[in-house]
Amino acid sequence: MSPLPTEPDALLKRARADDRVALARLLSYVERGGATARAVAHLAYRSGVPYTVGLTGAPGAGKSTLTDSLISEVRGGWPDAEAVAQVAVLAVDPTSPFSGGAILGDRVRMSQHALDPTVFIRSMATRGHLGGLSLAVPDAIRLLGAAGLRVVIVETVGVGQMEVDIASAADTTVVVVTPGWGDSMQASKAGLLEVADVFVINKADRPGVREARRDLEQMLDLARPGAWRPDIVETTATAREGVDELWRAVALHREHLVRSGQLAVRRTERVAQELRRVLLARTEVKVDELTAGEEFTTAVKALAADELDPYEAADGLLAG
Amino acid sequence: MSPLPTEPDALLKRARADDRVALARLLSYVERGGATARAVAHLAYRSGVPYTVGLTGAPGAGKSTLTDSLISEVRGGWPDAEAVAQVAVLAVDPTSPFSGGAILGDRVRMSQHALDPTVFIRSMATRGHLGGLSLAVPDAIRLLGAAGLRVVIVETVGVGQMEVDIASAADTTVVVVTPGWGDSMQASKAGLLEVADVFVINKADRPGVREARRDLEQMLDLARPGAWRPDIVETTATAREGVDELWRAVALHREHLVRSGQLAVRRTERVAQELRRVLLARTEVKVDELTAGEEFTTAVKALAADELDPYEAADGLLAG
Repeated sequence: MSPLPTEPDALLKRARADDRVALARLLSYVERGGATARAVAHLAYRSGVPYTVGLTGAPGAGKSTLTDSLISEVRGGWPDAEAVAQVAVLAVDPTSPFSGGAILGDRVRMSQHALDPTVFIRSMATRGHLGGLSLAVPDAIRLLGAAGLRVVIVETVGVGQMEVDIASAADTTVVVVTPGWGDSMQASKAGLLEVADVFVINKADRPGVREARRDLEQMLDLARPGAWRPDIVETTATAREGVDELWRAVALHREHLVRSGQLAVRRTERVAQELRRVLLARTEVKVDELTAGEEFTTAVKALAADELDPYEAADGLLAG
Repeated sequence: MSPLPTEPDALLKRARADDRVALARLLSYVERGGATARAVAHLAYRSGVPYTVGLTGAPGAGKSTLTDSLISEVRGGWPDAEAVAQVAVLAVDPTSPFSGGAILGDRVRMSQHALDPTVFIRSMATRGHLGGLSLAVPDAIRLLGAAGLRVVIVETVGVGQMEVDIASAADTTVVVVTPGWGDSMQASKAGLLEVADVFVINKADRPGVREARRDLEQMLDLARPGAWRPDIVETTATAREGVDELWRAVALHREHLVRSGQLAVRRTERVAQELRRVLLARTEVKVDELTAGEEFTTAVKALAADELDPYEAADGLLAG
């Protein structure tokens, strides 16, 4: 095979011909941000969006194992017999400043699909660049779509606002809990409830499943009438139990989205949200430039000397 | 007394002559935001900053009671005999959309200083306006300074990032913990350690004080050498025990700040941070305007049709 090109369009051509190394390089570009990432985005956003399944939940809920088991189901195609030739997993860790190296290695090595050419697993972490993962992940999903992948699973670590935001920017968002989760996750409950399209009680071989289900049902009873009521699926990912049911629940939600016209509505909302994020990131760059300048230093001195208020100072800086 | 004026300058004149109702109205202006808030800021930032003590810590740590006890100490003046004629308390609850009414009433009624004319207690909450409390609280502090108050205690509810940010934008930041706090607050520990100038173990009549102190000491041992090492004070606020020691610890830190020149450095950093926040808030307004416009809708449609990437779209909107 010829040596790997560096130009995004040449790389994308290779990625479309199933060259995983080319695809990995493109994803690195996206992750790194900057001009090359923009060139990749220019290509990626000209293709359709793959069907995206977000997976979020507390650390230790067994999301990685669940994702791994789910891959096999996805590879079997949609329950309505629509084939899925290839599946990608993005494992996102907003708290980690690194990617590629150790985490990716571990995550990929852990996977039973490590050597399966129809499965593409990749860890993503922020490299501290502008906008970080909330910009990079949507770009990565679009890139995977442009490379020909039709289903992408986005798995996030943790339940911070950013993790939940990332995982819920999916077509179907799966929230993973475990028996006894209610006590430890009190603070995140409402947020998770709001984004869930499917609930999974994983580690269902442990005591407390019935209580966890009752807890979820009660929460769902409080949701607004007419809204989609998430299925609650019990799985034991380590034993691959219930994972087929989870895939069917995802497919059911997809069917609901397509039939109700919600899929298009959601996707439009999502691009609007993405555009807003890019706009905010742009204006933050502007503020960073302003605060690095000499006029900022002068304004701060005047503020410290009680000669100015911060609103006047901001007006001056933005006008100047 | 003549009826209350509505103009900020007339109100400030009255507030300077100890008219608490005038001061309360000015604070409402600040809280509400907008043009009148700006007019108040214009006046407030021409005066010096009062000495500000921030109080933060887990809900249920007894911060309100501790603040109330501390007021009596503050009223006795600084330990070096410098008098404190008046003291203000801002009780800040970023999670509450309301203020003034119930919360203020409760907080003030609860206080043993409710009828003391030298003590001014006020609850602040966001009314959802731009920048919210992270802009309004510094403005309120400056306003209290302009009205002649020399010491302001800012007490926050909760230990979210915003609460910690607000409380730590003080000259001396007091972090309140209780015996056994370590287990429940694992996630917030590092953040609290970073901002603390003084630690209080409140409810020191309960078991676990020794463990809590050892826990704090161990954390402090890991701090960078040469940095200020926070005192650890044990209090039982309900019995007013240890509160005099807390006030001495605050005074000791103040002395350190003044002598080392750090007070001026910190305050300059603070105004720089405030100015940055105003700049960010301004640019967010710009983004909100952009996303409300017709061009945004057109861009979103093009994005949804895979004809554009969000970076190009943002460029177009920002240039237009």
